[in-house]
Amino acid sequence: MIKSHQSAAARPHPVSLRRRGPVLERAILESALEQLSTVGWHGLTMEGVASGAQTGKAAVYRRWPSKADLVADALRAGFPDLDVAPDHGSIREDLYQLCRRTRDAMLSRSGSALRSVIHECDGATAERLHGLIVTGVIEPSTRLFKEVVQRGIGRGDVRSDIAGELIFDVIPGIMMYRTKVCGSEWPDEELAEMVDQVMLPLLRPARA
Amino acid sequence: MIKSHQSAAARPHPVSLRRRGPVLERAILESALEQLSTVGWHGLTMEGVASGAQTGKAAVYRRWPSKADLVADALRAGFPDLDVAPDHGSIREDLYQLCRRTRDAMLSRSGSALRSVIHECDGATAERLHGLIVTGVIEPSTRLFKEVVQRGIGRGDVRSDIAGELIFDVIPGIMMYRTKVCGSEWPDEELAEMVDQVMLPLLRPARA
Repeated sequence: MIKSHQSAAARPHPVSLRRRGPVLERAILESALEQLSTVGWHGLTMEGVASGAQTGKAAVYRRWPSKADLVADALRAGFPDLDVAPDHGSIREDLYQLCRRTRDAMLSRSGSALRSVIHECDGATAERLHGLIVTGVIEPSTRLFKEVVQRGIGRGDVRSDIAGELIFDVIPGIMMYRTKVCGSEWPDEELAEMVDQVMLPLLRPARA
Repeated sequence: MIKSHQSAAARPHPVSLRRRGPVLERAILESALEQLSTVGWHGLTMEGVASGAQTGKAAVYRRWPSKADLVADALRAGFPDLDVAPDHGSIREDLYQLCRRTRDAMLSRSGSALRSVIHECDGATAERLHGLIVTGVIEPSTRLFKEVVQRGIGRGDVRSDIAGELIFDVIPGIMMYRTKVCGSEWPDEELAEMVDQVMLPLLRPARA
């Protein structure tokens, strides 16, 4: 994950800054994400990104032929990892931790930038960015959710007769819905309530 | 509900068209909804609406001081009724019928126009239109959903220990989520699956 709480453009320009490969790439992606959060899709320019990363325009164009390519990579790099499922020995705790990580991905700089930028750009780019939400947050968190439920079935705190796939849309569905309708930012207590009021009754074995 | 499959503007202009009160009002609202669906927020003009309703601009301005007022009323009038809860003697059938009506409201001309127009207009108007989704679809369908669940508790096919309000966000949440993420238009079979795979396990009494 890329981290910077200080604007790259605001830093004093060092005398010499010879960075190569991954280090320079990360600085460029970080600068792009910074620009996206502050000036949006329309305001972002390859020149501005280069300047924020203290490099030349050519170094940016060498790696990313277009603004859309650069923005897509910057957003992708800014999502927190959703690779390894939580494993705390109970479905309740695992779901809760997974909800927190999903919320953190939604509220990450990439997640926030994506939501605001997607309405700014043209149809093809919007489609591409929408795809990033799917591959960067939705698919990985659904995969982890399935893993957590599967482990619960093995352990016996989840019923074994779960049918279909719709059950895996309940958490992201409620989260998207309340974010849009009530402007919820999903504090931990609300995530815990979702687990206790909805997910545990839905998943518990019939004769629990 | 307002119905018209023919463009008002395309109809031949009758020699005399003296309509008053509700009849004229309905024609104006219908024309506004028609314009909104075809030319969008930016394309809609008070003149265009008046012409589509075969009346004068003054008749429009007399009732609606601004475009935003007119559009809000037109959208409101175009939503199907969500007043009376279905009552078929089983939670399964009641939920299914309620899901169908919620889907029909989402896919109504007002629902579709709202979704596309909300990104076109300025912040204050967008906020107002967002409020229309809440008062025109979300609040009434949630009220009916609660009624249906309450009746199920009385009948005994819904558990009596339901806690909190989040359970009532499951159906609209999944519907919004799959509409946005997979582009689902919610055919009846998919609604039935949601009821069977998610809502019945979530609501059934513990020792069923």
